[in-house]
Amino acid sequence: MTTPISHTRLGVVKRHIARADAAAVEQLGRFGSATVHEAMGRMGLMQPYMRPIHSAQVSGTAVTVLLHPGDNWMMHVAAEQLQPGDIVVAAITAPCSDGYFGDLLATSFMARGARALVIDAGVRDVRELGAMGFPVWSKAISAKGTIKATLGSVNIPVVCAGALVHPGDAIVADDDGVVVVPAADVERVRDAAAKREALEAEKRAKLAAGVLGLDMYNMRGPLEQAGLVYID
Amino acid sequence: MTTPISHTRLGVVKRHIARADAAAVEQLGRFGSATVHEAMGRMGLMQPYMRPIHSAQVSGTAVTVLLHPGDNWMMHVAAEQLQPGDIVVAAITAPCSDGYFGDLLATSFMARGARALVIDAGVRDVRELGAMGFPVWSKAISAKGTIKATLGSVNIPVVCAGALVHPGDAIVADDDGVVVVPAADVERVRDAAAKREALEAEKRAKLAAGVLGLDMYNMRGPLEQAGLVYID
Amino acid sequence: MTTPISHTRLGVVKRHIARADAAAVEQLGRFGSATVHEAMGRMGLMQPYMRPIHSAQVSGTAVTVLLHPGDNWMMHVAAEQLQPGDIVVAAITAPCSDGYFGDLLATSFMARGARALVIDAGVRDVRELGAMGFPVWSKAISAKGTIKATLGSVNIPVVCAGALVHPGDAIVADDDGVVVVPAADVERVRDAAAKREALEAEKRAKLAAGVLGLDMYNMRGPLEQAGLVYID
Amino acid sequence: MTTPISHTRLGVVKRHIARADAAAVEQLGRFGSATVHEAMGRMGLMQPYMRPIHSAQVSGTAVTVLLHPGDNWMMHVAAEQLQPGDIVVAAITAPCSDGYFGDLLATSFMARGARALVIDAGVRDVRELGAMGFPVWSKAISAKGTIKATLGSVNIPVVCAGALVHPGDAIVADDDGVVVVPAADVERVRDAAAKREALEAEKRAKLAAGVLGLDMYNMRGPLEQAGLVYID
Amino acid sequence: MTTPISHTRLGVVKRHIARADAAAVEQLGRFGSATVHEAMGRMGLMQPYMRPIHSAQVSGTAVTVLLHPGDNWMMHVAAEQLQPGDIVVAAITAPCSDGYFGDLLATSFMARGARALVIDAGVRDVRELGAMGFPVWSKAISAKGTIKATLGSVNIPVVCAGALVHPGDAIVADDDGVVVVPAADVERVRDAAAKREALEAEKRAKLAAGVLGLDMYNMRGPLEQAGLVYID
Amino acid sequence: MTTPISHTRLGVVKRHIARADAAAVEQLGRFGSATVHEAMGRMGLMQPYMRPIHSAQVSGTAVTVLLHPGDNWMMHVAAEQLQPGDIVVAAITAPCSDGYFGDLLATSFMARGARALVIDAGVRDVRELGAMGFPVWSKAISAKGTIKATLGSVNIPVVCAGALVHPGDAIVADDDGVVVVPAADVERVRDAAAKREALEAEKRAKLAAGVLGLDMYNMRGPLEQAGLVYID
Repeated sequence: MTTPISHTRLGVVKRHIARADAAAVEQLGRFGSATVHEAMGRMGLMQPYMRPIHSAQVSGTAVTVLLHPGDNWMMHVAAEQLQPGDIVVAAITAPCSDGYFGDLLATSFMARGARALVIDAGVRDVRELGAMGFPVWSKAISAKGTIKATLGSVNIPVVCAGALVHPGDAIVADDDGVVVVPAADVERVRDAAAKREALEAEKRAKLAAGVLGLDMYNMRGPLEQAGLVYID
Repeated sequence: MTTPISHTRLGVVKRHIARADAAAVEQLGRFGSATVHEAMGRMGLMQPYMRPIHSAQVSGTAVTVLLHPGDNWMMHVAAEQLQPGDIVVAAITAPCSDGYFGDLLATSFMARGARALVIDAGVRDVRELGAMGFPVWSKAISAKGTIKATLGSVNIPVVCAGALVHPGDAIVADDDGVVVVPAADVERVRDAAAKREALEAEKRAKLAAGVLGLDMYNMRGPLEQAGLVYID
Repeated sequence: MTTPISHTRLGVVKRHIARADAAAVEQLGRFGSATVHEAMGRMGLMQPYMRPIHSAQVSGTAVTVLLHPGDNWMMHVAAEQLQPGDIVVAAITAPCSDGYFGDLLATSFMARGARALVIDAGVRDVRELGAMGFPVWSKAISAKGTIKATLGSVNIPVVCAGALVHPGDAIVADDDGVVVVPAADVERVRDAAAKREALEAEKRAKLAAGVLGLDMYNMRGPLEQAGLVYID
Repeated sequence: MTTPISHTRLGVVKRHIARADAAAVEQLGRFGSATVHEAMGRMGLMQPYMRPIHSAQVSGTAVTVLLHPGDNWMMHVAAEQLQPGDIVVAAITAPCSDGYFGDLLATSFMARGARALVIDAGVRDVRELGAMGFPVWSKAISAKGTIKATLGSVNIPVVCAGALVHPGDAIVADDDGVVVVPAADVERVRDAAAKREALEAEKRAKLAAGVLGLDMYNMRGPLEQAGLVYID
Repeated sequence: MTTPISHTRLGVVKRHIARADAAAVEQLGRFGSATVHEAMGRMGLMQPYMRPIHSAQVSGTAVTVLLHPGDNWMMHVAAEQLQPGDIVVAAITAPCSDGYFGDLLATSFMARGARALVIDAGVRDVRELGAMGFPVWSKAISAKGTIKATLGSVNIPVVCAGALVHPGDAIVADDDGVVVVPAADVERVRDAAAKREALEAEKRAKLAAGVLGLDMYNMRGPLEQAGLVYID
Repeated sequence: MTTPISHTRLGVVKRHIARADAAAVEQLGRFGSATVHEAMGRMGLMQPYMRPIHSAQVSGTAVTVLLHPGDNWMMHVAAEQLQPGDIVVAAITAPCSDGYFGDLLATSFMARGARALVIDAGVRDVRELGAMGFPVWSKAISAKGTIKATLGSVNIPVVCAGALVHPGDAIVADDDGVVVVPAADVERVRDAAAKREALEAEKRAKLAAGVLGLDMYNMRGPLEQAGLVYID
């Protein structure tokens, strides 16, 4: 064929992806999604409808999968591409709340070393998943199963819950949400997050002692300049 | 009157209903909603917005009640029709999030032997309901009370959260959702669910040992035939 | 100035507000939102999408704050107006799910004696907030941070999640929702709630003993009069 | 086989259905959904999210079809079962907004004499459908196409947008929504609707002349008895 | 009675209200909701889910009505309080999409001189309402009728679609939404709107001639100062 | 600086972008979103909540802009980058329904030759925009204005309503929705769409003549093989 295979087409599995540095991803995960999101310049956050099925905090490298509504065939294709430390990021080509994932797939993903699933659709067996300790962030919980009929793709760039995810990007997820950090930015964002968190400890102590944010952040002048009026 | 009383009209209470076999319903309940839903041929599931107010897993026979928005009068009429092992399935004639049900009605339902409530509207006193151990699946939680002014019906066929429920049908509910099994199909579905679950145990062991679903389900051929391409 | 400063304009902070009686607010809080809402004549309830980030039950006096989408500047202005026993009620001028509030602001609010936050938007650091024991009712959870660029107001009347809140009003919040009691009505509503709850204990005992609501509430006559028909 | 074929299973097409009387359905359609819904005793209305893609008013007899998310295979099976005067009522086994229907299927349905489509999912080619004059009520509009991979059923009872529809039932749809009238009730409901409408003409004239509903409906007494207070 | 009648309770009709100046309200209406909303300081807008059932632009003085879910009894009580130039603003005590209003009530309201209805719920007979030329802004369209069983109030302050409305306030509504202007602010807001619109005409001409907003608003400096970087 | 400027950061404007071929984009636009979406392999469609404010059909090349909630500053920056034939694609960093765009900005965009706006937020002045003939696809309509305080970016890759858009990509939008075609794929997709449409004309004629899709697509065999059963 003269036409090269597009990496953004359906029916493609990319085997070799450049994963973000494992150590940096690990460190990034300790800060949590809110701090990382700020360190990113308030970018990269998935929509807030993405919720953990059980309270959890993880980080890992994205293996992406693009699925059709009501069809989880490519989940099994994705499983083979997993390496320890990966997080599966699943996008759907149209809104769908079906349960694409349950305890069997979780068993398989865990056996491959995966750390979590982030899916813009539904999952099921949520009690079992909690008992297994496999974290999941999803849009819905649904007992509705799926079929295996149509090709999607694995490890192409996907849009999951409003965020662009390239395979190998770092994912940081906790009870506040899910943030995507481009693989190339992981070290920079980690450093910015560390700096931010260091400052927060100091601020927290001051605020706990009764210092007002108004004074700590020197807001009184700007507020007055903006026209704020105090009345009795 | 020459016109016979319709069983689908408002203002009707049907006293004698054919309940699904109690033992079979009990057995069905152990499989959980996802397995039962699959055993049904992926039918009978209520919309995924139906959520348990506290984690729970139950099964029982449906006593149905049709209510008007903001009016829970018929809940008291339904109470009298309850037998041990029943689950009240409450449908509303228009979308409503009011709190139709709280700890008093739960006390009454429990005294009658009811096992749970499934309601396409809101409930309240959720902390007390948790302490009482009475499971509820609902669309909303709301402190908003209801009035007692308009007739609905008890034990007529109702549509609850998108699923058709006849009085006496089996209800299986857990953290994944709520499934309705027609009374006549309970034994067949139970057997299909048992078969399905037996197979799952074996699959789970294989997947845990690192066997891929691709191989266990013989998917490689069909995927290739469908045109799946692996690239580097 | 010939034009008096309007108390409902942006850019205004009202320093002295008439808070509902602390003891009465305390007593009110023990009844929970459902009973208080009924005692109010089924008025004053915020929309049921307002959910606690962790199970909690509190009451307090409202310090109100009006914010712009994506801008939490006025939260710091509100902090200075807090007194022990207050609950911050935050309204936004347009729908927004951003995380306006996290552990730092919670530290500051707690240092000022605030009991809770009720916000018609998102919050973050929810795990930390749980560990700190600071209760929050919100529309969303989101790691998305906010800026500090535009003036809102503090202690003006606001509409929060569909309910009108004047500064100083009593707020009662629990797992069932959030109710606003006008400061002037606190004693009356407390008494009505107490009377209601006293009756409930008695009813609960009867229902637990198997008495039907149909009989306890003398509903059989009205139901028959309304045309209810029993069939076999 | 000892097990009879269930009429509610997937993979079934029922060829002969008892359609509501054509003339009565025609007459019913002139009243519009609001009047018919009232004449039904405020039953049988689909959820209000069902909207016409273009302003229209029709009635007809239901040919039902049950489809899977993202799969419109059974639409073609349904086409063969259509007779002049039918309205296709399409339900989906799980929430889906895909475009199941466009100008080609509309051409086929029109050639068979169908009057409209009512679908609890999405449609596309809406401009062309308007030009063709084929009325559609749907949950969504979406260019997203569907596949043809999984069996559903035709002419089994379905739940569409919260309403139970048996094949052959009368459907009345206009800009206010979609109402289902059981085939056996069509004459009774038509008569009740006619009586209702006759009364409305008289009421309309009085109200236009400035008579108040308070007086026309004799509400002043009941309102006073209910405790209504007029203040200045 | 020692307890004075509260103006915010259920079961109250206030007969005499202070309406905003009719001429000023008329003038205000010509600017449309977006300009008025800006002139208000970006306050007073109802939630954007409030949509006109037919394209329209009106202004008028609010007669408020508070209703219960599924109950439109007070609409008739409100009709008697209407004067020419009024707009009925209807709030519901809990979320409801029922059709509270149709052509009969519209006939009555028009006979009383009302200009429009703004309702945080559903309406029906929308085709007839269009033919009658009676403008309506609502949350939903639904054929579902309502009952007449429970007291609400007329001409008390209400929260409608997130906005606080006092009886007599000015309402400005068009295809962009619904804005509430407190009666006391009508002249000031009208003047601010007029000034704003005068400036817009000039700006429009410049922009049409190809002048960039960047230059017209002198944004280049602030953007550079904020750190904006141009790259190739 | 040793760190290169990232093209995906906030505060960046890319001046030179590779636009898809104008003639091919023009041709693509004639097919409409549904056909183009199919020709893409059912990829690239924005979420179906994106709706035209007035019926329209256009195609053009994307100039992208990333904005913050409630802040439309970058719209003016984007205006300068517009060339005849462009369509502005506006993404927001968090869900927002504010009215970012009205008749003034439309005047400016039209003066620059822009063909349309696609925005994952709200717009206002919709009646004026209709009169001006400037097409807009949006998530909401809202009179709520925005501020100009925070930097976003222009001509970076953005996620708009769930679809990834690179500057220069082709946009095809009509009453069915909005599709994004990567610049590199425009010719291929145009050809596939043309082929698809050619086939559709033939199919349409057959279906209009009464041929069933069952026969035209040779579905009877596969349906039987899948187990479809016809009953009487």
